[in-house]
Amino acid sequence: MKTWQTTLTFDSPRRGTFNITEEICRAVAQSGVTTGLCHLFIQHTSASLIITENADPSVRRDIEYWMRKNVLDGDPNYEHNYEGDDDMSGHIRTLLTETSLMVPVTSGRLNLGTWQGIFLYEHRTGRFRRKVVVTVQGE
Amino acid sequence: MKTWQTTLTFDSPRRGTFNITEEICRAVAQSGVTTGLCHLFIQHTSASLIITENADPSVRRDIEYWMRKNVLDGDPNYEHNYEGDDDMSGHIRTLLTETSLMVPVTSGRLNLGTWQGIFLYEHRTGRFRRKVVVTVQGE
Amino acid sequence: MKTWQTTLTFDSPRRGTFNITEEICRAVAQSGVTTGLCHLFIQHTSASLIITENADPSVRRDIEYWMRKNVLDGDPNYEHNYEGDDDMSGHIRTLLTETSLMVPVTSGRLNLGTWQGIFLYEHRTGRFRRKVVVTVQGE
Repeated sequence: MKTWQTTLTFDSPRRGTFNITEEICRAVAQSGVTTGLCHLFIQHTSASLIITENADPSVRRDIEYWMRKNVLDGDPNYEHNYEGDDDMSGHIRTLLTETSLMVPVTSGRLNLGTWQGIFLYEHRTGRFRRKVVVTVQGE
Repeated sequence: MKTWQTTLTFDSPRRGTFNITEEICRAVAQSGVTTGLCHLFIQHTSASLIITENADPSVRRDIEYWMRKNVLDGDPNYEHNYEGDDDMSGHIRTLLTETSLMVPVTSGRLNLGTWQGIFLYEHRTGRFRRKVVVTVQGE
Repeated sequence: MKTWQTTLTFDSPRRGTFNITEEICRAVAQSGVTTGLCHLFIQHTSASLIITENADPSVRRDIEYWMRKNVLDGDPNYEHNYEGDDDMSGHIRTLLTETSLMVPVTSGRLNLGTWQGIFLYEHRTGRFRRKVVVTVQGE
């Protein structure tokens, strides 16, 4: 068994979900692991990682609709608003989704289901550079 | 250290939570791992995995109540509704719970707390066949 | 590669978030792992683990505000209320956050982002003793 690790950088152009499945597949191939697990960890508290339906973009627009409706931007009851209306909502959205994901590796590939894709979910409305630590462990 | 992996299949009869703790315990015993981690990954975007109180079924009825109340079926604002009123709500419920779980293995057993059980949470109202990839890594 | 495991105990004085980053850093140092993953698992269903902004405590007060607003204590529609108004809300809050966390270990240290901290989130209003199983795997 071995551990392989790298850090990937993604530039988020705006609030929204961005498909990073291909970049993660490439990292798994580089790791040389055949059977094991691939762990992703985003080093931020206003951007997160999700696995969801990768076929129809309307799924991700509806996820964004639910978030906007249930995690208010600029709720007047928030104390923490130094960086604007998307500051505190970004932290709560991150909490409700995932800071890390773990996907099985089988026969040298990410063993995702047919409809699953991996997305970086940027919760801030501006542009940000986001780092994801990828760790692959296995045989 | 070694990696052991298998895929389990579960038939969900309807929307709701189904206790799969025993099947996972059996897989851990088969793996032969004494100290390590057991990872579960559901290969779907409308069914998820949760760890919650395993003693009183009313806990899981109340979780379902919260989900129904906060993640509307057939919200008229959803764009994605090809497969019915439970289509988009199923994706959002999956996002708010877990696509994967990781539980420690200690002395050859799942090291769950006294009140914890592992459940497959089916979010669609029909019948579905769901696959869970189990990976155990350790010594 | 090796697996290292221990159980830490934390006394929660009340509902709220408690920074446990330092205790986890110490466990990682004890493990002797240089490159790998650190897994935390809380053995309870009314307390959870979160990674969020560790600089300004108002972030965690706003998270608690969102939880109180969206996961009602003592909702009259809950069936499960044996241990009081914070019983069922504690289970739902746990579900919406995390029972386990996984953080990369790089150069012998937890590879958290600059603003990330690890917190135990106690959801019950009384005092509780909480156990967290720490497993470190790597080289």
